[in-house]
Amino acid sequence: MNKEIDLSKFQIRTDLAIDYVEEKSKLKGVKHKTEIIDNIKVTNVELESINALNKKKGKYITLEFEDVTDYNNREKVTSTLTTVLKNILKLDKGSFGLVVGLGNDKSTPDSLGPLVVNNIIVTNHLYILNELSDGYKRLAAINPGVMGETGIETSDIIESVVKKIKPSYLIVIDSLASKSIERLNKTIQITDTGIHPGSGIGNKRKEISYETLGIPVIAIGVPTVVDATVIVSDTINFIYKNYAFNKEYMNNPKSKLTFNNVNYLKKELKENKKDKQELLGLVGTLDEQELQMLLYEVLNPIGYNLMVTPKEIDFVIQMLSNVISNSINNSIHDIDKK
Amino acid sequence: MNKEIDLSKFQIRTDLAIDYVEEKSKLKGVKHKTEIIDNIKVTNVELESINALNKKKGKYITLEFEDVTDYNNREKVTSTLTTVLKNILKLDKGSFGLVVGLGNDKSTPDSLGPLVVNNIIVTNHLYILNELSDGYKRLAAINPGVMGETGIETSDIIESVVKKIKPSYLIVIDSLASKSIERLNKTIQITDTGIHPGSGIGNKRKEISYETLGIPVIAIGVPTVVDATVIVSDTINFIYKNYAFNKEYMNNPKSKLTFNNVNYLKKELKENKKDKQELLGLVGTLDEQELQMLLYEVLNPIGYNLMVTPKEIDFVIQMLSNVISNSINNSIHDIDKK
Amino acid sequence: MNKEIDLSKFQIRTDLAIDYVEEKSKLKGVKHKTEIIDNIKVTNVELESINALNKKKGKYITLEFEDVTDYNNREKVTSTLTTVLKNILKLDKGSFGLVVGLGNDKSTPDSLGPLVVNNIIVTNHLYILNELSDGYKRLAAINPGVMGETGIETSDIIESVVKKIKPSYLIVIDSLASKSIERLNKTIQITDTGIHPGSGIGNKRKEISYETLGIPVIAIGVPTVVDATVIVSDTINFIYKNYAFNKEYMNNPKSKLTFNNVNYLKKELKENKKDKQELLGLVGTLDEQELQMLLYEVLNPIGYNLMVTPKEIDFVIQMLSNVISNSINNSIHDIDKK
Amino acid sequence: MNKEIDLSKFQIRTDLAIDYVEEKSKLKGVKHKTEIIDNIKVTNVELESINALNKKKGKYITLEFEDVTDYNNREKVTSTLTTVLKNILKLDKGSFGLVVGLGNDKSTPDSLGPLVVNNIIVTNHLYILNELSDGYKRLAAINPGVMGETGIETSDIIESVVKKIKPSYLIVIDSLASKSIERLNKTIQITDTGIHPGSGIGNKRKEISYETLGIPVIAIGVPTVVDATVIVSDTINFIYKNYAFNKEYMNNPKSKLTFNNVNYLKKELKENKKDKQELLGLVGTLDEQELQMLLYEVLNPIGYNLMVTPKEIDFVIQMLSNVISNSINNSIHDIDKK
Repeated sequence: MNKEIDLSKFQIRTDLAIDYVEEKSKLKGVKHKTEIIDNIKVTNVELESINALNKKKGKYITLEFEDVTDYNNREKVTSTLTTVLKNILKLDKGSFGLVVGLGNDKSTPDSLGPLVVNNIIVTNHLYILNELSDGYKRLAAINPGVMGETGIETSDIIESVVKKIKPSYLIVIDSLASKSIERLNKTIQITDTGIHPGSGIGNKRKEISYETLGIPVIAIGVPTVVDATVIVSDTINFIYKNYAFNKEYMNNPKSKLTFNNVNYLKKELKENKKDKQELLGLVGTLDEQELQMLLYEVLNPIGYNLMVTPKEIDFVIQMLSNVISNSINNSIHDIDKK
Repeated sequence: MNKEIDLSKFQIRTDLAIDYVEEKSKLKGVKHKTEIIDNIKVTNVELESINALNKKKGKYITLEFEDVTDYNNREKVTSTLTTVLKNILKLDKGSFGLVVGLGNDKSTPDSLGPLVVNNIIVTNHLYILNELSDGYKRLAAINPGVMGETGIETSDIIESVVKKIKPSYLIVIDSLASKSIERLNKTIQITDTGIHPGSGIGNKRKEISYETLGIPVIAIGVPTVVDATVIVSDTINFIYKNYAFNKEYMNNPKSKLTFNNVNYLKKELKENKKDKQELLGLVGTLDEQELQMLLYEVLNPIGYNLMVTPKEIDFVIQMLSNVISNSINNSIHDIDKK
Repeated sequence: MNKEIDLSKFQIRTDLAIDYVEEKSKLKGVKHKTEIIDNIKVTNVELESINALNKKKGKYITLEFEDVTDYNNREKVTSTLTTVLKNILKLDKGSFGLVVGLGNDKSTPDSLGPLVVNNIIVTNHLYILNELSDGYKRLAAINPGVMGETGIETSDIIESVVKKIKPSYLIVIDSLASKSIERLNKTIQITDTGIHPGSGIGNKRKEISYETLGIPVIAIGVPTVVDATVIVSDTINFIYKNYAFNKEYMNNPKSKLTFNNVNYLKKELKENKKDKQELLGLVGTLDEQELQMLLYEVLNPIGYNLMVTPKEIDFVIQMLSNVISNSINNSIHDIDKK
Repeated sequence: MNKEIDLSKFQIRTDLAIDYVEEKSKLKGVKHKTEIIDNIKVTNVELESINALNKKKGKYITLEFEDVTDYNNREKVTSTLTTVLKNILKLDKGSFGLVVGLGNDKSTPDSLGPLVVNNIIVTNHLYILNELSDGYKRLAAINPGVMGETGIETSDIIESVVKKIKPSYLIVIDSLASKSIERLNKTIQITDTGIHPGSGIGNKRKEISYETLGIPVIAIGVPTVVDATVIVSDTINFIYKNYAFNKEYMNNPKSKLTFNNVNYLKKELKENKKDKQELLGLVGTLDEQELQMLLYEVLNPIGYNLMVTPKEIDFVIQMLSNVISNSINNSIHDIDKK
């Protein structure tokens, strides 16, 4: 098998720092802290040098949670995200924010940004008229659209509006591609490093960051789509894990009763290389990156390297956008309820 | 009755040059030409001095037509509007257009601009990549949103994008307020003078024009809403016209048979002032402007000076937006069919 | 002027019992009670005989309120409507309701019914599986569509579903035509007499009632559109009232200061027939019904008897549908919050 | 590995007869014919006995085509589908059709049925008024909704409406689950056997067929979603095919130049069992059904047996619904253009 593939081709489709971190967290220049707040796993990664993970220097905070179509989960995530945003924004009285919704409001899995912006409580026009109520900070919001519909590089629209209205910080919301099935629609990443080339679902190619705009850029992203290669590579790993789990527990009479409902991913199992190769052949000897390279090579020439989204996406994206817009409103304005 | 009302208050809500022209077309500096093309009345007004009608110097072309929910009418209006736009745009090969949809896509009667932009064939991103196909010109399009949702003066967004991408001309589409029931959803006005303060349905307050942007600005507007005062003032005039018509034709035995189906507005009738006062009292002695002042004074303090739209607006606005977007696409690109 | 017009022609377009009641409330067989609950005017009319108002025997409850785009007003109306529905429904444990949304979800002012149904908490499928949670009653809901889109008489769809699933009562939601500007989007009528021929905005022609279906039918209606004739006739009356008010208060130095902000409709003023005729001529001598006949005669032949809706209808209808769906859910199920 | 899994569990999610046919087409009682019409592969399967494929007796016609977001492909598929429908419907003058859109208009991948119904030209209400124009046949259409939103078994709504209006045939449109990546959004299946238990995306559990309704039922289905197990099982097969292809062609100097763009699936290659096991281990020894069982067993307990849809689904489903609604309109009514 030819493994000399240009690796960058499929790195192109993910943007979750956490995907890189876990295996490599012992690297120098990487601070890494995980807490569980209200059933939500909050991971703080701080990269002190741009080289550490081939990712930019800065803060990467990841919230991992269960299904937000559940009301209680939604409330918990909103509350945690509000706190995270307050901490990363650290706004003073004179702050002036611009919220930017990236993506295409006519494509459900790419509509997160526009949906969030539609619920932002904007106040800049009132500020200008000296009519800003107590408790509210100066805030504006735009949906710049996507290049396929405007003919304009999205970053050009953002840059020109920033130059004109001069906000003191930017919040950018985007849909992302996931590097694992587990994170799909169940992760929010917040970073102060902005949005980078090749990230996201669509063609948002120019960087939107402090370096290009001269003001802090907080990016909020949710993985809403996943590559077929990721689904397959994850599943191939699960095949082995399931096998290893069965091998260890199947002959143990005590475990028999609960067998069917056990989440074997939550058990720590040692990897047995010989078993894995017997089960999966040469494919079982590949590491994760090699496996994804192979899958890319297999699926791409026949046109089946689909990016897909769960069939319930309409409902999920609505809930996620509520969580994020409410968190932004709550973290910027002093409001008790909508 | 107190007639000393600030007249500008209700001038605020109309933008159809044709509304002013008809009674005053003998003024100096006003060229006025009307043709019927394919059942569509096309009125060309050219104002040579800014003072003539308190309107800006430039061309005002008005298309008046029947219901565009009919397929054939729609085709005719599209064809006529395409010709009008070609003539006013006079594009050369190096042209670069920006189409701007004013209005709120979440408010049906104000959604004309955004709906049109959604159907524009944009090509600027292909031009930049040197991938522009034969027959297509360079074109971009944006929906800047409304101030109530962005917190930003719409003209500021437009101005900043114009500065950044440097188009050679602008086309701006907007929903307007009508000064007569007859024109509602049955008129398209094209002008090369741009969009002006106080025009349109919402609060689009800063001028968008050659003077402010430095490039030609073609505005395309359709009256989709009408003030209650206009409905009442039109109807009060119709009461008299209906009366005068009946008086003249009722005793004429020949006319009896067709009486019910006659459109009395199409008959020229001399106004009899005494009859009018008998029928309508003091109200019948007011000229149009005085009557509207009175109605404004009556309806405003009690909160019933509603702006309204016909109940079929969802269907009509969809058809109007198709007419306008197809006409723009056809007049700029050399395309035979969609 | 010819006054011999078929009166039924324009009665066709209203369905608010309250419109008829106020002037005629001293009739035999009409019980009439008005209370103000939480700033909402609640009118209970009970017609004991079908002849009283040319309306059917039964209860007509009308809620009149201020703008529901305000959060607090919305909460109050929801709370009052919940109580009203509980009282009129008087459900026991074995009840099984079917909620029917009349109207067209693609036409904003006619979309109230479908929007309400989209938010109803249905449970019938869980009941059948024996999975109904405590506090919930058996409930189903359908949007039968409109005849122009289905080709089927709406009442036929309802009747056939009722026969099949056998609910013990029906709740029908519909958009109505208003007989006054004041009531537009600011009134909810609840009646136990069902929906009748010629009511509503569209062509929902067959009766939906206890008589036709054999189960109680509660109809909930909101006037969302209004005829041009109503706007004009209301305004002509306001012209006189404004004049009478000015005549009485203008020369009173004390009132001068507040003059501009006074709602003259709230003052009781005696009608002076001579004044009215001087002001409005022969038109001023017509009673309300005669005036509307005249306006119908004037506007209909020229095609301008538009039914219109306020330009903000998209926002208002969303809020009204929330009020009604929450009230239905709260009055049927024992739920504390959504 | 435990292979004793209840096979019916994952058969539940597919409904394309063609999926079963290809491998088993030599069975008795199966007539099978394939033609290529205008680049579209049309497969006619006729099952003469209910036992042949565990599928019902009747006609199964499958259209396989390329991307319908392309205008020309769309026109070709519409034309072919029109012909297929005309042949299977064989309508006489007195026919009366009811078109039923299954699925949920608020869930993009499940909205095919409702979208199609929205574009059907219904005429039944005109027929009843004796106003049916020449060239049009009697037709009605409903969107019964989904049980989760109505609380009512969908088949009960259909059955009750059929009983009431008595159509002479039914056309039912539904979104399906695909058994292969290749067929996703690129296949339309037409059958005269109706819709069966366990088919489709959602919970449409009762049969809708001649047997239950007493009139012919034509079902039109498009696979718009696919299980993760299918993606993985297809890909695992592709890994081997890609390997076999490379092995055969890599050392052939002539093939090197075109290597990257070759679709290896289109080459016939003999399967080498030893190679396959070396490459894929024990997994490589499983047949397709065993592999899917294994994957189901691996993904289900950890909650990752997602049903997914391509991220472009919003655009694709719109195009597919246009193809189907235009084909239905064209095959029933004698109309030249929309």
